[in-house]
Amino acid sequence: MKIKSLSSLFFVCSWLLLTETAMAQQAQWIWYPGDFDIWLSNKMQNRRTERGSFFPVFWKMDNHYVLMDFHKVVDLHAPEEITIHAEGTYNVKIDAKLVMGAPEKVLVPAGKHKINVKVFCQEAVPSIYISGKTIVSDSSWMVTYEDKEWIDETGKTSDISATKYLHAAYSNFTDPSQPPSAFKLPVVPRFAVKTEVSSKSRLIDFGKETFGFIRLHGLKGKGQLSVYYGESKEEALSATNAETQDQLQVQLPEKRDSVMPLSKAFRFVNIVGDGNVSLDSVSMLYEYADMPDKGRFSCSDEEMNRIYDVAKYTLHLCSREFFIDGIKRDRWIWSGDAYQSHLMNYYLMNDNTTVTRTLYALRGKDPVTGHINTIMDYTFYWFLGIYDYYQYTGDKHFISQNYDRMKTLMNWVLARRNKDGLLEGLPGDWVFIDWAAGLSKKGAISFEQLLFARSLETMALCAELVHDPEGATYHEMAKQLREKLFQYYWSNQKNALVHSRINGQPTETVTRYANMFAIFFNYFNETQKQAVKQSVLLNPGIQKITTPYMRFYELEALCAMGEQGYVLKEMKDYWGGMLKLGATSFWEEYNPDASGAGHYAMYGRPFGKSLCHAWGASPIYLLGKYYLGVQPLTAGYDTYLVQPALGGLQWMKGEVPTPAGNINLYVSTRQIKVQAPAGMGTLRVKSKTPPKGNNISVTNKGENAYDITIQPGREYVINYLAI
Amino acid sequence: MKIKSLSSLFFVCSWLLLTETAMAQQAQWIWYPGDFDIWLSNKMQNRRTERGSFFPVFWKMDNHYVLMDFHKVVDLHAPEEITIHAEGTYNVKIDAKLVMGAPEKVLVPAGKHKINVKVFCQEAVPSIYISGKTIVSDSSWMVTYEDKEWIDETGKTSDISATKYLHAAYSNFTDPSQPPSAFKLPVVPRFAVKTEVSSKSRLIDFGKETFGFIRLHGLKGKGQLSVYYGESKEEALSATNAETQDQLQVQLPEKRDSVMPLSKAFRFVNIVGDGNVSLDSVSMLYEYADMPDKGRFSCSDEEMNRIYDVAKYTLHLCSREFFIDGIKRDRWIWSGDAYQSHLMNYYLMNDNTTVTRTLYALRGKDPVTGHINTIMDYTFYWFLGIYDYYQYTGDKHFISQNYDRMKTLMNWVLARRNKDGLLEGLPGDWVFIDWAAGLSKKGAISFEQLLFARSLETMALCAELVHDPEGATYHEMAKQLREKLFQYYWSNQKNALVHSRINGQPTETVTRYANMFAIFFNYFNETQKQAVKQSVLLNPGIQKITTPYMRFYELEALCAMGEQGYVLKEMKDYWGGMLKLGATSFWEEYNPDASGAGHYAMYGRPFGKSLCHAWGASPIYLLGKYYLGVQPLTAGYDTYLVQPALGGLQWMKGEVPTPAGNINLYVSTRQIKVQAPAGMGTLRVKSKTPPKGNNISVTNKGENAYDITIQPGREYVINYLAI
Repeated sequence: MKIKSLSSLFFVCSWLLLTETAMAQQAQWIWYPGDFDIWLSNKMQNRRTERGSFFPVFWKMDNHYVLMDFHKVVDLHAPEEITIHAEGTYNVKIDAKLVMGAPEKVLVPAGKHKINVKVFCQEAVPSIYISGKTIVSDSSWMVTYEDKEWIDETGKTSDISATKYLHAAYSNFTDPSQPPSAFKLPVVPRFAVKTEVSSKSRLIDFGKETFGFIRLHGLKGKGQLSVYYGESKEEALSATNAETQDQLQVQLPEKRDSVMPLSKAFRFVNIVGDGNVSLDSVSMLYEYADMPDKGRFSCSDEEMNRIYDVAKYTLHLCSREFFIDGIKRDRWIWSGDAYQSHLMNYYLMNDNTTVTRTLYALRGKDPVTGHINTIMDYTFYWFLGIYDYYQYTGDKHFISQNYDRMKTLMNWVLARRNKDGLLEGLPGDWVFIDWAAGLSKKGAISFEQLLFARSLETMALCAELVHDPEGATYHEMAKQLREKLFQYYWSNQKNALVHSRINGQPTETVTRYANMFAIFFNYFNETQKQAVKQSVLLNPGIQKITTPYMRFYELEALCAMGEQGYVLKEMKDYWGGMLKLGATSFWEEYNPDASGAGHYAMYGRPFGKSLCHAWGASPIYLLGKYYLGVQPLTAGYDTYLVQPALGGLQWMKGEVPTPAGNINLYVSTRQIKVQAPAGMGTLRVKSKTPPKGNNISVTNKGENAYDITIQPGREYVINYLAI
Repeated sequence: MKIKSLSSLFFVCSWLLLTETAMAQQAQWIWYPGDFDIWLSNKMQNRRTERGSFFPVFWKMDNHYVLMDFHKVVDLHAPEEITIHAEGTYNVKIDAKLVMGAPEKVLVPAGKHKINVKVFCQEAVPSIYISGKTIVSDSSWMVTYEDKEWIDETGKTSDISATKYLHAAYSNFTDPSQPPSAFKLPVVPRFAVKTEVSSKSRLIDFGKETFGFIRLHGLKGKGQLSVYYGESKEEALSATNAETQDQLQVQLPEKRDSVMPLSKAFRFVNIVGDGNVSLDSVSMLYEYADMPDKGRFSCSDEEMNRIYDVAKYTLHLCSREFFIDGIKRDRWIWSGDAYQSHLMNYYLMNDNTTVTRTLYALRGKDPVTGHINTIMDYTFYWFLGIYDYYQYTGDKHFISQNYDRMKTLMNWVLARRNKDGLLEGLPGDWVFIDWAAGLSKKGAISFEQLLFARSLETMALCAELVHDPEGATYHEMAKQLREKLFQYYWSNQKNALVHSRINGQPTETVTRYANMFAIFFNYFNETQKQAVKQSVLLNPGIQKITTPYMRFYELEALCAMGEQGYVLKEMKDYWGGMLKLGATSFWEEYNPDASGAGHYAMYGRPFGKSLCHAWGASPIYLLGKYYLGVQPLTAGYDTYLVQPALGGLQWMKGEVPTPAGNINLYVSTRQIKVQAPAGMGTLRVKSKTPPKGNNISVTNKGENAYDITIQPGREYVINYLAI
């Protein structure tokens, strides 16, 4: 067993080594960690328009450092010429001596030398791209925004030890002629499936929810042309209430093709001219982030397969430069929304660059002046997102690059505790929780304390990873807060955590939020879990959840307690319900009791609801984590669990991405096939008979439960009899 | 007396009122306080080149907020159309309701309404310009970088009370077609006084130190052309050591005029072509900040008049977008240098916009990560500069706009105290003091504690102005620190403050720095002052000061003790010495013992020294404050002192600017004429006979000293007999 474990370790390490070597040969555009992410998010989030008006965020937008010093110490066997590209004005120093001008090529002599490149750029992020035979710009370069190198009266340069360096960041931009500021999502042409033309208007149907730039072909004439976008036909046809639109003043004596300047979400567009403007046809440029699917899922239930496919499409539409909330309206980076996208991402695209880019953008820069997106819970989801990111990827590098920002944000939060050490909404804090009628936001809400406790645990974990002695303090604070959760909020009478505590007194209300999170955070003991399941989760007397956002966690809690059968039915009802109404992507909110175009209303506006919202895609996560049952047990899938649950399906098969490649799984009621690329796995099954297979190591855990060890690189075929 | 004082007050108020009305009719480009200043300083400070290479600063450069909300509540008698210009993408809300598109004109209805304009701009500072019949953009508009206005589930907007607003800032940009980013200093053509042409080169002399863009007239041919700039002839002729140069690749079949892209400092330029390039002539575009002189000084000593004129020219050359150190080399905003420029400015241009712009740029933004310019003393000069600014201008508005930045910087400093509450240089801190050979920077230096104490006094003063209860704490900390200064550093044996304290023990060295500052800070009692004058100031055994930078304070200390006669001789020796060497502007450093081109060397480079350095212009300040003897006693010259001292001159006359206009003064050994526009003045003279004049109120202070009250708007002619 020990030898086997070592060989597995060796396998992982050599793979990492290969990657490291491969990276060293590929020059990258590099910059200060977080700066490109912030710059790009400013650009993206300021693209929102509402009825033709610019509609920006209401929180602080940060900015990049305009002056950046990049350096690396190299040790060369032979002199080497390097080529330098920079975004901005720059200089080059070799061993602290300025090279004349802004050299495109520099000869670095043999031996040990320090190369510095200092760049100023106001408009975009100071970035460099350096390539030589062995010297390339990559994350081995160090960066600082204040090098504190001054010259004293003798002309000597002082290099001060207190200067803070980080590793340079990159995002796989490898073309020296395309600096980071040139980054754009790719587009491909797509065509309408149906067009209805009347004398003054033209209604185009692209067949399903989509996103991109409308192209008007053969536009000609002089006059006004309006383009009304609709996620529904009703919306496109409502000149007064369509959420997005373009107004064009056309003056074209000859036919010309015209592309709208901003990409938009729509299935339908209604184009209305004033009679003097004509056009031949309408198509679109579909804009997308190139994130190939790694994860897969299919099963014996065709409706579930359709749900999975539409969830995939929904998540892809909402996964762009960043993980955004939805494609029609905000197109902003909301921490609570992004948190769910990250989790789904680990089971589908496993695109970690987009996760860290989203985390950097959400965090912004110091000083902290408000909660992330102004929302208290959203600050905590940011911490939780880091916790999960580390679990799924094992990426310690990001933790250490980002740790200072975690700490200053947590310090800001800690300074806002009330005398009991709890957090209440202070002026300027939005306590969100969920869109739910009549939900009280007063006092210290149990749900917020729960997220706070988990955030402190995240601090403790990361402090340990970066060897910050404060780790013990965070650990202790988390422990105390967990104790207070039960001391202040647990009601023996209600068998649940109550909703809030006002003026030092617990309230009588029970809501689902804290109770369901405490289940999958494992804050309850087994007795409490079972009690809460009955008293809250399956209790119709507790206010129902109507957003897919909180349904995500509610169904997760049920799955975590083995209720896959129940959850499968819920998924078929809820997501299947949207499909039955013709949804081609999943919605921001779904209320089965609404009817007709009433489904599209929200925020007091007839088409206020987004019909493609990332948080609607949660089946991806639930199916991957709780049906295929794959999840890391230690960071980066070094050890992991495969605990399949069919929940009533006859069979299912799928793939779950890990840092080293996919875990493949086929599960029927009688057979399980599994293969993993790395790490040490535990396949946990319930079987009426002892599982059988060639060369398998089975541990009988009692009560029909069996653990089977999964070694990397082997295909396991296990025969069993599902309970 | 009381009635008179009231009428004076009335006078001041009505003047302010007039200004307010005048301002309300003039629309301004407005922005978030400090943001334009920071943006412009990034642009300016990154113009430095050294031998053709970009040469940026080594401290953190900050950046503007990219997203800004401007608002104003108006109350209109009649509907009013406003015109909107913005730098950036913008929207307009009237009473929280979005106006469609990015409207250039909006009709504001009669009655009370809130106008919001929200602007995003990445490249430059989000700014607006609004003009209507009564509504104009000015500092009555409020700004915030996070409006925290969110929409809840019912579509209602939450306006959160914790949002922090400041008044918008402006800089007299009143042309709507010229947004702030278009700001440029004006230029005028200037011509050479002498040209020496040889076969391959051409040496042009502009007659005196100057600054601007070199113009090459009738440039033609193909090949390399080098432009070497020299503050001295020797520098221009040194292709290898000239500090600045331009290298041109010429390819012009026809004659053309060409202007160099960067403005430079020079008196001489040497233009060297490779033989295939020809040109007809060379001129320049003199670049300057348009700051008219308000103050004047002239006297019976022609050498002093020349010193004053060259000092004026020096200060003007170094007063550009900001008060910079010198024009050849750094062209950066150095806090210690700017501090002196501010003081000189109060006696010459009295341009307060440039003072506050410089203070904002120096401070940058939170978080504080290092001392201003990395230098401990320079952090303190920033505080001192605010103290003086308030004294000379009475501008409470700036104090309240800037106060938060003062507080976060001071908190950062306070966190760096050692166990005795003193400041020592920590890693990353540059303890500068002065360019002086062998000067120890170890331990807790008395000079730094002195500046620290004065900074705490500044905090106490400003806290009181903005009604921050922390004021008492700052006051107490300042008091304690002043006590420690004497407890730890005063040596009865040496009759002086010693230089430093290392490991809790005072050192034996005495330097001039702390001792001279303690005189004009009034930290010494009269006995100590007199003792220090002999034991330090006039003691040749104490290390001499060689920079005009510290000469400024040394001479100020002597003047503050009535040594105007001695100081006049020193000025004639030191500044007169530079003039005798042909200086057309005053230098960064002057050592009478150097000779020939040796005068131009510094930092180990033959032409490293700047021959036009703001800190060389201190006679402007000394002559205004200690010879004409005019200084505010309370903020903004509400009360002020005129204490003329001829220091051996037969007569002098001059004008000193105040917020309300100039104080005019003529002083001979027998007569004083004085007239002031506002405030209550005290003319303090020493006279062998009681001063006489029409309608004057004289108080005999004993020992031949007399105080005469100066009322605004009256010309006083006083006959006396100077001692």
